[in-house]
Amino acid sequence: MNTLEIDGNLLIKQINELGNIGLDKVNGGRTRIALDNFEKQGRDKVVSWMKELNLDIQIDRIGNIIGTLYPKDKNKKLKPLMIGSHIDTVKNAGALDGCYGVLAGLAVLRSFREKDFLPSRPISVVCFTNEEGVRYQPDMMGSLVMAGGLDINKALNTIGTDKTILKEELQKIGYLGDLEPTSIIPYKYLELHIEQGPILETNKKEIGVVENLQGISWQEITIEGKANHAGTTPNNMRFDAIQAMALTRTYLKEYTDNETSTLATIGSLNVEPNLINVIPRKAIFSIDLRNPSEEKLQKIEESLSQFLKELESNYSLKISTKKLARFEPVIFDENLCKDIEKSSNELSLSFQRITSGAGHDAQMISRIAPSAMIFVPSKNGISHNPLEFTEDIQLINGAKVLLSVVLKNL
Amino acid sequence: MNTLEIDGNLLIKQINELGNIGLDKVNGGRTRIALDNFEKQGRDKVVSWMKELNLDIQIDRIGNIIGTLYPKDKNKKLKPLMIGSHIDTVKNAGALDGCYGVLAGLAVLRSFREKDFLPSRPISVVCFTNEEGVRYQPDMMGSLVMAGGLDINKALNTIGTDKTILKEELQKIGYLGDLEPTSIIPYKYLELHIEQGPILETNKKEIGVVENLQGISWQEITIEGKANHAGTTPNNMRFDAIQAMALTRTYLKEYTDNETSTLATIGSLNVEPNLINVIPRKAIFSIDLRNPSEEKLQKIEESLSQFLKELESNYSLKISTKKLARFEPVIFDENLCKDIEKSSNELSLSFQRITSGAGHDAQMISRIAPSAMIFVPSKNGISHNPLEFTEDIQLINGAKVLLSVVLKNL
Repeated sequence: MNTLEIDGNLLIKQINELGNIGLDKVNGGRTRIALDNFEKQGRDKVVSWMKELNLDIQIDRIGNIIGTLYPKDKNKKLKPLMIGSHIDTVKNAGALDGCYGVLAGLAVLRSFREKDFLPSRPISVVCFTNEEGVRYQPDMMGSLVMAGGLDINKALNTIGTDKTILKEELQKIGYLGDLEPTSIIPYKYLELHIEQGPILETNKKEIGVVENLQGISWQEITIEGKANHAGTTPNNMRFDAIQAMALTRTYLKEYTDNETSTLATIGSLNVEPNLINVIPRKAIFSIDLRNPSEEKLQKIEESLSQFLKELESNYSLKISTKKLARFEPVIFDENLCKDIEKSSNELSLSFQRITSGAGHDAQMISRIAPSAMIFVPSKNGISHNPLEFTEDIQLINGAKVLLSVVLKNL
Repeated sequence: MNTLEIDGNLLIKQINELGNIGLDKVNGGRTRIALDNFEKQGRDKVVSWMKELNLDIQIDRIGNIIGTLYPKDKNKKLKPLMIGSHIDTVKNAGALDGCYGVLAGLAVLRSFREKDFLPSRPISVVCFTNEEGVRYQPDMMGSLVMAGGLDINKALNTIGTDKTILKEELQKIGYLGDLEPTSIIPYKYLELHIEQGPILETNKKEIGVVENLQGISWQEITIEGKANHAGTTPNNMRFDAIQAMALTRTYLKEYTDNETSTLATIGSLNVEPNLINVIPRKAIFSIDLRNPSEEKLQKIEESLSQFLKELESNYSLKISTKKLARFEPVIFDENLCKDIEKSSNELSLSFQRITSGAGHDAQMISRIAPSAMIFVPSKNGISHNPLEFTEDIQLINGAKVLLSVVLKNL
C-alpha cells in the first residue's frame, strides 16, 4: 500500500479546470451558486471524473453526489470511509474552497486505481449540496440532511433568496436522486480544506490538524431610536441608533480584548434614513460570535444580551434581537487527529493543532461518524475572494496526508 | 401704525394652499425640490399673491423673487428692510420650513395694504432660490449669491445631482431674471422660521429670539481596513473598518458628554462588503459637528483629527477625511434681538434667547446687513418630515412679532 501515490499534476489540473466553470474573466473570481447553471456544469464535470475512475455513482434525494470505490465482494457491505466537501461557491469566489477537498478525494481513489489496488472497505468521495448557503438556508445543507439534522422533505421545500423551490431546481439540473440521504452512515469521515485563515502561514506550518471547530452564534440586532435634526436637537434629547450600535461594537471589542479566544464581528450594517444631517432612526446589524468552547460562547451571548438590555433602558431605545444561526462547537475525533499528525511526520511536513473558525460539512457528519479535518495554508488568510490562494506544492502535500490517513483507517 | 394687523386666517390659508403643491397624498409630505415643476408652481403661486398685494416684483439672476412695497416717492431709494426665507423643500417635507417665513412676510405687507398705509422705507419680501441644497450644492444658494459669497456665474453653472445645469433649469421654469443679485443691500434683514428643534416646546416658550447660529463642520471619513473571514481571523490580525468607526463614534460621544454645547452626529454610514461573516473592509461615514462658538468648533475638529491619526496608526488602517462643508458661527444683530424681545413682551408672548442649530438664509444676509431671526415652536422638534407641525395660533403669533419688529425698524 505504501506504493500508492497522489498524481499531484492531475489534481492541480482538475482544480484549475473546475475553477474555470463560472469564471468571471474580468475580476478573476468564479460564481457557482448552489444548483445554478454553472454549478450544474461543475457537478457534471465531477461526475465525469468519477466515471473515469469507474466509481459507483449515487445521487441522494438532497442532490449529494457519492462516488464509491468498492473493495472485493466480502467487504462491500462495510460502512464506507468517507471523504467529502463541496463544489458550490459564494459569489466571486476562489477556486479552492470545497473543490480542493472533493478533488483530493478523487486523487486518493485514483492512486488506488493506478496501482490496480482495491481498498479493504468502501471509500466514498462525496460532493455535498449547498454548503455555502448563499441561495438556500441553512448552509451545509447536504451534510446536515445526511446526518439526520434536517428533514429531507423540509429541505426540499426550501425557498431560495430568488423565490425558487430547492426541489424544483434540483430536478431542473438533473440532480434530484432517489437514495435516502440518511441511508449511508460513514465508518469515518475526513475533509481536506484550505484554512481560510492566516494561522498556518503565520506560524509557517504546512499542515493544520483540525482538532475542533468553533461554535457559531449569529444574531441580527435592530436598534430603533428617533430621527431628528442633527443641528437642532440637544444631546440629551437624542435617540441615536448609530451611536448605540457603536457603543455595542465598542463593548464587544473590550470583551474580546480580555477574552481573546472569543471572536466578535459586526459585518453587516444598514442605517436609516442614512442622511448626513439627520440623527439616525434605525440601525440593523449582524453580530457574529465564535468560540471553540460552548461555555465561553454562552458567556458572551449572555453578557451581550445584558449589555443590550441596559443600553435600551439607559438611552430609551427599542432594541430587538433575532437569532439567525447557532451551532455548538464540534470536537473532532482524537484518533483521527493523531493519525493526521503521524502522517504529517512520516511525510516530513510541519504541522500544528488548529481550530476551524469556519463551518464545514465535517461538523455535520461528526454527528454520525468519527470525523476530522486537514487544513493547508491560505495565503494571507484570504478566502471567499478571487485572491484565495494556496501554493500547488502545499495542495499536493495536503492530498498526500489525506491518502496516508485514509490508508491508516481502512 | 399700531392699527396694523396680521390677517391670521389668510396666512394659515396660504400656508396650506402652498403646502398642497407637490403633495404626496399617501404619506402626507410634499416635495418641491429647487427649480422642479412643483417648485415652479409654488413660485407662480407666491408671485400671484405678491401681485394681489400690488407689490413691485423683481427676479434676480439666481432666481430670487423680490416683492417690494415702496414708500412715497422721497424715500423710494432708501435701502429696503428685507423679510426673507424660501419655498423649496427637501423630499417629503412639511409645509412650514421656509414657506412660513415668506408668507408671514406677505402678511406683514398685507397689513399695510389693508389700512392703505405706506411704510417709510421700502419693505421687500424675498423668496430665496435653493435654500435646501437637495439638487444643487451649496445650500442657501440664493442668499449666498445675494450676499456676494458665491459668484453668480459660477452658481448658474452648478451641475445638479440629476446632471442638469442650474441656469438651464431656471430658464426652463421662467425664473432666470436680469437683476444683479448683489445690487440690493438690505437695510436690515428679518427671518421668521419654525425652530425645527424641541427647545421652545420643552421650555414652554412661544417665541425664540435667535441670537446666534451654530457653526457647522461637515466631513466625510473613509476608513479602510481589510476584508477577511469572520471565523478564521484572530483578533490581533483584524483590520475592522466598522470597529474603527464605532470607536470614533464612541470617542465623539465621550467628547460631547463633557462639552455639551458641541453636537456631533454620524448620520450617514455605508460599509463594504456588508456581509454577516466578513470582517468589514470599508466604512464611509459623515460627521456633522456644530457649536455656536468658532473656538469650540475648531477644538473638536482638531481633537477629532488627532484621534483619527492615532486610530489609523494604532490599528494599521487607512483613514482619509474629506471636508464637505464648513460655516463659521453667526452672531445676529443685538439691537434686532432686543426688538424681538420688546415686541414679544408687548404682545404678552413668552420668549427666550435661542441658538439656531440649522442653517438659514439669514446667516448669509447677515454678512451684508444687520440680521436676526424669530422662531416659533416645532411640535416634538420634528422637521424635514410630514409630521412637521406648529399650532396655527403660534404661527400667527410669530407673524405678529415680525410685524411689530418691522414697525420698530423702518
